[in-house]
Amino acid sequence: MGPHPAVAAIRLAVRRVLHDVLTDLAARDLAAHSHASSGVAAAPAATAVEPGRAPLVLVACSGGADSMALASALAFEAPKLGIRPGGVTVDHGLQDGSDLRAAEVVARMTALSLEPVESVAVSVGREGGPEAAARDARYAALDAVAERHGADAILLGHTRDDQAETVLLGLARGSGIRSLSGMAAVSGGPGASGRYRRPFLQLDRQTARKACMVQSLPVWDDPHNADPAYTRSRLRHEGLPALEKALGKGVVEALARTAQLSRDDADALDSWAAEAESSVRDESGLLDCAKLYALPPAVRRRVLRRTAVAAGSPAGSLFARHIEEVDRLITGWRGQGAINLPGRVEARRQGGRLVIRQG
Amino acid sequence: MGPHPAVAAIRLAVRRVLHDVLTDLAARDLAAHSHASSGVAAAPAATAVEPGRAPLVLVACSGGADSMALASALAFEAPKLGIRPGGVTVDHGLQDGSDLRAAEVVARMTALSLEPVESVAVSVGREGGPEAAARDARYAALDAVAERHGADAILLGHTRDDQAETVLLGLARGSGIRSLSGMAAVSGGPGASGRYRRPFLQLDRQTARKACMVQSLPVWDDPHNADPAYTRSRLRHEGLPALEKALGKGVVEALARTAQLSRDDADALDSWAAEAESSVRDESGLLDCAKLYALPPAVRRRVLRRTAVAAGSPAGSLFARHIEEVDRLITGWRGQGAINLPGRVEARRQGGRLVIRQG
Repeated sequence: MGPHPAVAAIRLAVRRVLHDVLTDLAARDLAAHSHASSGVAAAPAATAVEPGRAPLVLVACSGGADSMALASALAFEAPKLGIRPGGVTVDHGLQDGSDLRAAEVVARMTALSLEPVESVAVSVGREGGPEAAARDARYAALDAVAERHGADAILLGHTRDDQAETVLLGLARGSGIRSLSGMAAVSGGPGASGRYRRPFLQLDRQTARKACMVQSLPVWDDPHNADPAYTRSRLRHEGLPALEKALGKGVVEALARTAQLSRDDADALDSWAAEAESSVRDESGLLDCAKLYALPPAVRRRVLRRTAVAAGSPAGSLFARHIEEVDRLITGWRGQGAINLPGRVEARRQGGRLVIRQG
Repeated sequence: MGPHPAVAAIRLAVRRVLHDVLTDLAARDLAAHSHASSGVAAAPAATAVEPGRAPLVLVACSGGADSMALASALAFEAPKLGIRPGGVTVDHGLQDGSDLRAAEVVARMTALSLEPVESVAVSVGREGGPEAAARDARYAALDAVAERHGADAILLGHTRDDQAETVLLGLARGSGIRSLSGMAAVSGGPGASGRYRRPFLQLDRQTARKACMVQSLPVWDDPHNADPAYTRSRLRHEGLPALEKALGKGVVEALARTAQLSRDDADALDSWAAEAESSVRDESGLLDCAKLYALPPAVRRRVLRRTAVAAGSPAGSLFARHIEEVDRLITGWRGQGAINLPGRVEARRQGGRLVIRQG
């Protein structure tokens, strides 16, 4: 008799991602060797895979059901593929006794035979709101742990339900399809292959919870997840259920699919804009208004955005309405003055050219 | 003292659209003349603007607050621009006494000095569900009325709130950014200029209602709008309010902005796919797998979709998962057999070529 379907599902999801990690490592290895043999300087010894050293994959574990399920699946699958499974938990220090909690999670990971296992304490600032500040602190700590242990990947327990919530949060910004594309299955870290992997992005939260239950894994429910002071928590417990009631049970899946499709669309349009940007510049590097006008609006606005960010306007403060106003210098020219953008950047039309620069 | 702000807002929205209609008519007129003077056969007399005949713009009016506000603003603004304002109401025959209701709406439009004014009865089928069937019947009737009176445009009372609901309905399909792009400000009818115009797409429902109130216009609340049997009604009365509670008051505006951005993005990607489609065909017109592989996924999938639709697969039955399966013939080739698509179309890889055709 095989494992419970929920356990089979989490293991399959992790196995697939571990295969991807190995494939990426092999490709990197091959590239390093071919560089060496073709006479190009070899990659520094520290980043090359040492012969005989097994790859290390860490799980980032809060002790909640999603990441405990992930930890258990990693512990089961990694050794079969010659991978060392390790774990890290982040103590955000936001609640009394969070250090004890972290120690308990370390003990649970150790009980799963993960090695190395550690807890890192971070201090959470205030920038961008409580959720963003906690996230920034967490990823900085995880990056540092990965560097220290020479980990080849860190697995994150985000599920399809988290993805659906992220899409709705992006939708509320109304800033276009990039913000609808949610979390990537692979992201972050140095190099294109990506340090962070999210094996459960196609899996629902209920499956992870079930897998913990049938494996008798104790899980911890973060009180933040039920605290209505947090936008994501309100979305999870009120917004999304109401939306499901109105639109039907497929909403979470539809939102997750929207994320993937939007990501691919946004990538394609970004690549178009990158190419278009060089083609609309004149000999002196200024943007030619007539050539900008000829671009599709979606591409033109991305070119304007790229140029504004390159000129020093902070991407996070540059909203769709700013770009629309700059766009009207091209599409609705009637002698407007300079447009002020965040970061003391201004956009001005001068004799058939668009000049965007810091003042 | 000027009019109430709500009345000023609805009039401004209508004035802008009427200007657009006049601009488009002038452009069409100019094109017809230049054709005639350049020796090309002139446009048939029936479609040319007859000298001395004022343009006619109709409002589609249900008697509800949105379209009554629209009717009142059209009645006020049109004569100042030399436009004849008329009105039409559609009797869907779905409720007892709907004919009396339609007669009442005709009387109210007549009281606003609209001319011509008429009521058209339609019979609503069942295809695609009750809402889609009613919509199809309505637009067919409106098209017929526009043709009969030689109307230059039909104004529709959809507000920003309707747009937000439409985006959420599209989101629930999970079929990508085209379905997130909601309703167009200009759409339908023969020619690129579009017969249908939605002046209130940036205006909230509350403003339309307020404008009716301060002008003492009687409005009728369609019981369908509050009937929880309808998805849109559940969304309006439960889904969207819950989402606003979780995400904040700006949700409707953010959804409407998402619609506009998604529409532009989808248009740009469609134009890219149309160009790419010809560049990936070989001499005999077959799709070259290697060239398809080199396209960004978002563009490749659109090319595959276009090809499948052109081969006879009904666009409405062709889902993202179908296209994904065909895409794997390109990106994950391991000798799969033919993929069956709706409309007896099949996709098959044959010696480096992708063949999509009806069986």
